[in-house]
Amino acid sequence: MSVISLITDFGLRDGNVGVMKGVIWGIVPDVQIADISHLIQPQNVRGAGYVLARSATYFPKGTIHVVVTDPGVGTSRRPMAARLGDWFYVGPDNGTLTLLLERAEREGWPCEFVHLDKPQYWLKVVSHIFHGRDIFSPVAAHLANGIPLIELGTPFSEPVRLHIPKPEKTSTGWRGEVAEIDHFGNIASNIRVDDLGEALAHKEKIHVQFKDVEVKGMVDTFGERSVGDLVALLSSTGELILSVVNGNAAERLHAKIGDPFEATNHAN
Amino acid sequence: MSVISLITDFGLRDGNVGVMKGVIWGIVPDVQIADISHLIQPQNVRGAGYVLARSATYFPKGTIHVVVTDPGVGTSRRPMAARLGDWFYVGPDNGTLTLLLERAEREGWPCEFVHLDKPQYWLKVVSHIFHGRDIFSPVAAHLANGIPLIELGTPFSEPVRLHIPKPEKTSTGWRGEVAEIDHFGNIASNIRVDDLGEALAHKEKIHVQFKDVEVKGMVDTFGERSVGDLVALLSSTGELILSVVNGNAAERLHAKIGDPFEATNHAN
Amino acid sequence: MSVISLITDFGLRDGNVGVMKGVIWGIVPDVQIADISHLIQPQNVRGAGYVLARSATYFPKGTIHVVVTDPGVGTSRRPMAARLGDWFYVGPDNGTLTLLLERAEREGWPCEFVHLDKPQYWLKVVSHIFHGRDIFSPVAAHLANGIPLIELGTPFSEPVRLHIPKPEKTSTGWRGEVAEIDHFGNIASNIRVDDLGEALAHKEKIHVQFKDVEVKGMVDTFGERSVGDLVALLSSTGELILSVVNGNAAERLHAKIGDPFEATNHAN
Repeated sequence: MSVISLITDFGLRDGNVGVMKGVIWGIVPDVQIADISHLIQPQNVRGAGYVLARSATYFPKGTIHVVVTDPGVGTSRRPMAARLGDWFYVGPDNGTLTLLLERAEREGWPCEFVHLDKPQYWLKVVSHIFHGRDIFSPVAAHLANGIPLIELGTPFSEPVRLHIPKPEKTSTGWRGEVAEIDHFGNIASNIRVDDLGEALAHKEKIHVQFKDVEVKGMVDTFGERSVGDLVALLSSTGELILSVVNGNAAERLHAKIGDPFEATNHAN
Repeated sequence: MSVISLITDFGLRDGNVGVMKGVIWGIVPDVQIADISHLIQPQNVRGAGYVLARSATYFPKGTIHVVVTDPGVGTSRRPMAARLGDWFYVGPDNGTLTLLLERAEREGWPCEFVHLDKPQYWLKVVSHIFHGRDIFSPVAAHLANGIPLIELGTPFSEPVRLHIPKPEKTSTGWRGEVAEIDHFGNIASNIRVDDLGEALAHKEKIHVQFKDVEVKGMVDTFGERSVGDLVALLSSTGELILSVVNGNAAERLHAKIGDPFEATNHAN
Repeated sequence: MSVISLITDFGLRDGNVGVMKGVIWGIVPDVQIADISHLIQPQNVRGAGYVLARSATYFPKGTIHVVVTDPGVGTSRRPMAARLGDWFYVGPDNGTLTLLLERAEREGWPCEFVHLDKPQYWLKVVSHIFHGRDIFSPVAAHLANGIPLIELGTPFSEPVRLHIPKPEKTSTGWRGEVAEIDHFGNIASNIRVDDLGEALAHKEKIHVQFKDVEVKGMVDTFGERSVGDLVALLSSTGELILSVVNGNAAERLHAKIGDPFEATNHAN
């Protein structure tokens, strides 16, 4: 029994996500379907790719991740499917894959990309504006049914990539920015566990600077400080984050994506 | 493996949708359940029926659509189940079915309706205010389990219908109104692909008038215009709609359901 | 085929709920997973426990309810699993179980509790801040796979309990408070069907006092009054509630959790 996951910017009101499930189950009746998020900000390709990169590898090997944030639908942007290591991607070739692909390259996963150009694996009628229903859902279902990736399209080698800012190593630490703000108001930077590296052996020496606030020392978890305290720690997926214990850091600090976010290593 | 879909106005916070799934899986453990929408505006029977009509036929044949927007729960309004062509409906007899039934009649699908009056197919205790849990979920589960429709209730012939305005053909085009506004802010009229008919052979000659705005010519997809442009096109389910490329037309034009929406054919 | 249900305060945007499903299906591929709610107010342990207590027993026997509202994650609060009669609980030992446990005791269900202290049933890497993914999902999956509860941890006898106010019987009726406000704006008190008991034989004699409003007599369902009327009735799970027919009582009366809510029996 295989798994298909869904990430879209469709929202939960209009029924478009349900329709994708109907199309999938019409082709592969026993596949499990997991909603990852349908509340990606409309047309926010980078945001969808961020959620994909955080989530993809917690799913069983062979899972097919369908991601549809598709401002270029109906234009010449390629519909694509891909294998990245043990997981599959189906969606537009618009940069959604960037972060997951960077990880695949760091970890040396084998990757394949195909341009979805075989209409026999699509719905019979394809609209100009809902390829999630008409192309990506049926392709994912056929993949779950055992059709090989290479049957679904024509191989190509260079998927579109977004420029996603990386943190900079400075003489005293790291200069990054806010990459995401979550439901709880946690402020996630683009400075990751791998960037911090051995400095994490002395967490108490890592100070975080954000706007006019400095947090001295990282903690392991919220419970080490009191309700309402501002803390710096690693998120469950390895980002350096700022949080308020049982509160909302993003609201308190008026944080938004792209704001400068720095850390200093006082162990030196 | 069969499929049950759910459309309700229950929201996603209180757990009522989850409870319906618990009841269903207690009767038919291996059925797939797809949420279509639980964010129908409270008591908006017409809105629920609109989502149903757009979604129903993308599901596999035999799918049972449970729709519960039920302001008359506990009164004399009939609980019902129906077959419309290859799909089933379970829910209150309050007009939810109107649009799908009109389509069934246009397309000549065979239809059957039963009044759910056999308590042996319900939960043992039936509340006065949650028939979604106590009647409709168990009935849908028994139907998925292979109990024939006719066993579940007493046949009747005339389900309740809502009056849903149809567009009017004028000497120069079509006079309709706004039927729905979606998550992206697309403004959907009640003027449909079938109304436009052969005029669609010259899309560029169809102009749309909405409030003090005129959009000259329809496009096939968003990408034919620039970000921020107002465009007229067909939705993925065949409605004539107004959209802003990567933006929100309903916010920009302060659109609401029922607003006049006209189109003119300049091919003549 | 068994069922796992999920209640969290994770919201629907960031993908954390989807990731839990990925982890579960990686261990037990054919389990059904029902979302009950992911819109519990952040850190509202009591609110999560309220939804659990209302929902748990509508699920098939053997269902595993995973509830993660976990302000103490990463501290010394115990991760736990429990059997309460025919249902299972997996989550933090922080009082979430209180209401369901009170019911178990009233009804004489056998109960067992284990402290989850066997990392072989967890993900290999356990973060300090997302035990929903790293501990509770894999434990629930192993339980669904047939691992006995007792294998998953060390038995203990006294789970943490919250103090949850009970209504007081007065000489003329009942003095309670607002326990919950739902999606429709129904105001649910903590006065329950069992508290009202035989007084319900004369519903019309039970008057409800809330703020400066008195509702004289209870009804069975909304349809007995006109749109916009304020009514008192029993909810589908047995709470005495105030509702506005096809409207929002909480907004009209500016209700909030903890507000005094009284009822008087005029049958005497």
